[in-house]
Amino acid sequence: MEGIFGNHWLFAASVAELPEPGDYVTVDYGPHSLILVRDDNGGVNALHNVCRHRGARVLTEQSGTTGNLVCGYHSWTYAPDGTLIHAASAPGEKFDKDCFALKRAHSRVVAGLVFICLATEPPEDFDAIIPTIEPYLLPHELNKTKVAYQQDILEEGNWKLVMENNRECYHCDGHPELACSLFPTWGLSDGLIPPHLEEVWDRNQTAEQELQDRCDRYGLPYRVIEELNTRIAGFRISRESLDGHGESFSESGRRLSKKLLGDLPDFRLGRCSLHLQPNSWFHMLSDHVITFAAFPINERQTLVRTTWLVADDAVEGVDYDLDTLTHTWKQTNLQDANFVALCQKGASSPAYEQGPYMKSEYQVEMFIDWYRQRMQEHLA
Amino acid sequence: MEGIFGNHWLFAASVAELPEPGDYVTVDYGPHSLILVRDDNGGVNALHNVCRHRGARVLTEQSGTTGNLVCGYHSWTYAPDGTLIHAASAPGEKFDKDCFALKRAHSRVVAGLVFICLATEPPEDFDAIIPTIEPYLLPHELNKTKVAYQQDILEEGNWKLVMENNRECYHCDGHPELACSLFPTWGLSDGLIPPHLEEVWDRNQTAEQELQDRCDRYGLPYRVIEELNTRIAGFRISRESLDGHGESFSESGRRLSKKLLGDLPDFRLGRCSLHLQPNSWFHMLSDHVITFAAFPINERQTLVRTTWLVADDAVEGVDYDLDTLTHTWKQTNLQDANFVALCQKGASSPAYEQGPYMKSEYQVEMFIDWYRQRMQEHLA
Amino acid sequence: MEGIFGNHWLFAASVAELPEPGDYVTVDYGPHSLILVRDDNGGVNALHNVCRHRGARVLTEQSGTTGNLVCGYHSWTYAPDGTLIHAASAPGEKFDKDCFALKRAHSRVVAGLVFICLATEPPEDFDAIIPTIEPYLLPHELNKTKVAYQQDILEEGNWKLVMENNRECYHCDGHPELACSLFPTWGLSDGLIPPHLEEVWDRNQTAEQELQDRCDRYGLPYRVIEELNTRIAGFRISRESLDGHGESFSESGRRLSKKLLGDLPDFRLGRCSLHLQPNSWFHMLSDHVITFAAFPINERQTLVRTTWLVADDAVEGVDYDLDTLTHTWKQTNLQDANFVALCQKGASSPAYEQGPYMKSEYQVEMFIDWYRQRMQEHLA
Repeated sequence: MEGIFGNHWLFAASVAELPEPGDYVTVDYGPHSLILVRDDNGGVNALHNVCRHRGARVLTEQSGTTGNLVCGYHSWTYAPDGTLIHAASAPGEKFDKDCFALKRAHSRVVAGLVFICLATEPPEDFDAIIPTIEPYLLPHELNKTKVAYQQDILEEGNWKLVMENNRECYHCDGHPELACSLFPTWGLSDGLIPPHLEEVWDRNQTAEQELQDRCDRYGLPYRVIEELNTRIAGFRISRESLDGHGESFSESGRRLSKKLLGDLPDFRLGRCSLHLQPNSWFHMLSDHVITFAAFPINERQTLVRTTWLVADDAVEGVDYDLDTLTHTWKQTNLQDANFVALCQKGASSPAYEQGPYMKSEYQVEMFIDWYRQRMQEHLA
Repeated sequence: MEGIFGNHWLFAASVAELPEPGDYVTVDYGPHSLILVRDDNGGVNALHNVCRHRGARVLTEQSGTTGNLVCGYHSWTYAPDGTLIHAASAPGEKFDKDCFALKRAHSRVVAGLVFICLATEPPEDFDAIIPTIEPYLLPHELNKTKVAYQQDILEEGNWKLVMENNRECYHCDGHPELACSLFPTWGLSDGLIPPHLEEVWDRNQTAEQELQDRCDRYGLPYRVIEELNTRIAGFRISRESLDGHGESFSESGRRLSKKLLGDLPDFRLGRCSLHLQPNSWFHMLSDHVITFAAFPINERQTLVRTTWLVADDAVEGVDYDLDTLTHTWKQTNLQDANFVALCQKGASSPAYEQGPYMKSEYQVEMFIDWYRQRMQEHLA
Repeated sequence: MEGIFGNHWLFAASVAELPEPGDYVTVDYGPHSLILVRDDNGGVNALHNVCRHRGARVLTEQSGTTGNLVCGYHSWTYAPDGTLIHAASAPGEKFDKDCFALKRAHSRVVAGLVFICLATEPPEDFDAIIPTIEPYLLPHELNKTKVAYQQDILEEGNWKLVMENNRECYHCDGHPELACSLFPTWGLSDGLIPPHLEEVWDRNQTAEQELQDRCDRYGLPYRVIEELNTRIAGFRISRESLDGHGESFSESGRRLSKKLLGDLPDFRLGRCSLHLQPNSWFHMLSDHVITFAAFPINERQTLVRTTWLVADDAVEGVDYDLDTLTHTWKQTNLQDANFVALCQKGASSPAYEQGPYMKSEYQVEMFIDWYRQRMQEHLA
């Protein structure tokens, strides 16, 4: 917890979860609880959810709207920037309110995604990747989206198993719904295609070429940038084609919402996917966005929060059907939760020893290499 | 647990919970389980609830009546004083029953309140406070009361947070029912009254003067004695006025039971309140008594047991209505349980640091000072 | 766990639970999970239930039938002997399947009882006891039985308390159903009979003599062999008489299934009982067999699995009534679970100290002596 979650930029929420000033969400990373609150200038403050008086948790709901933040115990009242603005006191009581603002964490909003950092000195490396990833993400204009649905799954495995599971498609036979649109050849490359996937691979190649032509036409970046183990803010970003109609995560590959996001020119834009260590991944499509956040609970449980965003003017029942929109990833998440639980259980046996990674799992190896580096640096 | 609960006198129950010889209650302090059983002479024995044969828990109910104490495993049978009086054995089996009495803890009954001590040598300091507190308590004659109601709340916080919460009324805005009768200026003094409480304070002062006059007339002690951090058996005792009619913890301040306790001469006697470290507090009124005991479960949970006592000849439905009698403190206890849980959660964050105490919280500071002293002595 | 369950032969199941090739059961000993699978040659393989790829638990059901063992995560496929026979891979991927068979534990089938050993070098002492115990067990021909019923109880006590409880009948007043057929004088001997058991003892002596005559006639061994603390595979075996009709664990002592096991010549054969450390005991009667296995969960919980076996051609509702067959031990098990829980609770008190064992508990003392020896050897 300290080495990884204490020293890195962590995904917390998207701006669609905090559309108006005063809107807040609370998120927990292990024993840490944080309040993210939108201020009047549109910024997002990250505040430790710990009253400076007696330590009570200040906000107890997962989300809501508030003017000031009032602790439920003795009514100490904080502004959305954390400043203590009221604490009942006796006349003449010497007490400097300025010393007791809620502790702040660092926060950044990148293309509508809110990140926080618990470290005193956040790693500067995060700044360096922003210019690289923003061109991929900005066209989806998250600030013009709204939350269609949010799902929390308490997975019976630690956060590391959750992230490892996300870095390979070697298990994609276990995701029949997802495999309709996401090519199960993901993670493979020429010369490594197993016979039963050769046909899919050909389709994938063709779709990829078409997508790249389309992106070139629209000036959208698509190149795979893979820096999972070469920097502190390990990440992978790309825009990749989808199977079938190539529009969205549906059985046919067709759009799931009728409203295009932002000023996107076309529905057939595949998926812009970002994996960002240590705790998040994202799929941005032309018609909706899905954010995934892993919040560690303890050494054997992780809360995985999935949020579906659609254009803020999309109307449920008219422009999208909620069950259809969320079907593929709801199923996929449940399948993944089961895989993670199997690993947690099995790897808890004293008989467990690390096995070999297949070539299609090279990103898992990269992630583990990153983890080793980060922990070595922390422990040094 | 060892430093505090192993080395101090602990409140366990009142004699009203054990009215007849053979009546018992079992109480747990962390991993310790004790039997309190009334013997034929009216004394109360405190016995470790651990069979001397194979270690089985002897009594499993929270309370009841028994002749001898029979272990459910092999029927070893103990007298109410713990003596082993029967263990099935083979003819000629050499076995000295005298060596296997149930282990005893120290016990004392003070004005009808039963205390136990787990230490080999109980701190003598407890003897010293008895002559001080008895004159306050004895007039309520607990030996002539009966249990009207008992409530157990499993609070999601450690016992220290429970006790700290009890030492201040800075949070009394969170107790609307209680604030009808208990002056929320409690803990304040002249010159420290915040503007919104000035009117209450004037009422409080007037009521206090009237109560003191009345007590002087009846020969009842009322002076505040506050020795929270100046001795091992840290305590605070006083008789203080109540708001409204000044009789009891009701919305109007009027009596909640029609029967006066003991030989008390008047219903308008406010509340005689005792706080006794480490684990109890009491409110004794003219018409009923409430005892509060904090039983630590583990490092983050505490069982808080509240018991309402009325005159033993008071008849439910005639002299008192049970819901009305218990309303104020049932609500107050739930509110306090919530406050304690907020503190436990918030203070578990690595971002927590101790904050400033307000003047109205001076007793919390005293309690913490006592705790530090006691732990230092234990660790030395 | 390591000293005892890591270094001894452990009972897992009987062959009646795995009648056909491909049948499997999974059993857990603390953090260890094992698959027992019957192979085509009638042998039983014990395999660690941990995929060699990423550590996922391979089989998740408690029992079933399978061809090969397929991991649910990435479909790695193992033969019933643990050999990895398929793992999807890319063309040309260098990967030696021979190195990634499921790890095996040692396994032995003794008279139809399946034992496993987690140690690299199993203690040889187990081999030595087999010729001693087989003559007692083999006549019941477990390979011609079937499972009539299986009951799992999660006992709130550690495995050691479970085993200790099983080694004495000093508590048999707590087993009224069992005491109808199992003489509660069990564990006693001449000169040690308490007065209230004298009549039972006389009956017991007579029944014993009759049983021994009968066994002599049929060539069945019956002598008590008690090596609880004189070897690594501590055990006790005997054939002892039952009360009443002397046939089975019923109220009258009469048979509970109409079909004799194996080629047994008579129903009146009492009980052939085996206690085998560290985790099992067995009662073999002429009409049915009961196996008991203690699977430790953690330091305060144990799963006790009881399995009733009848002749494989016995027909439920015709030859036996399931409720009647299982009644005595279902009740006895629940009573024992309560005793174990009482001990776990009481012995967790810091006030607990070990008490004296009565002569009728000499086998508990032997078991504890064995435990001390085994742990000393492990820690040395």
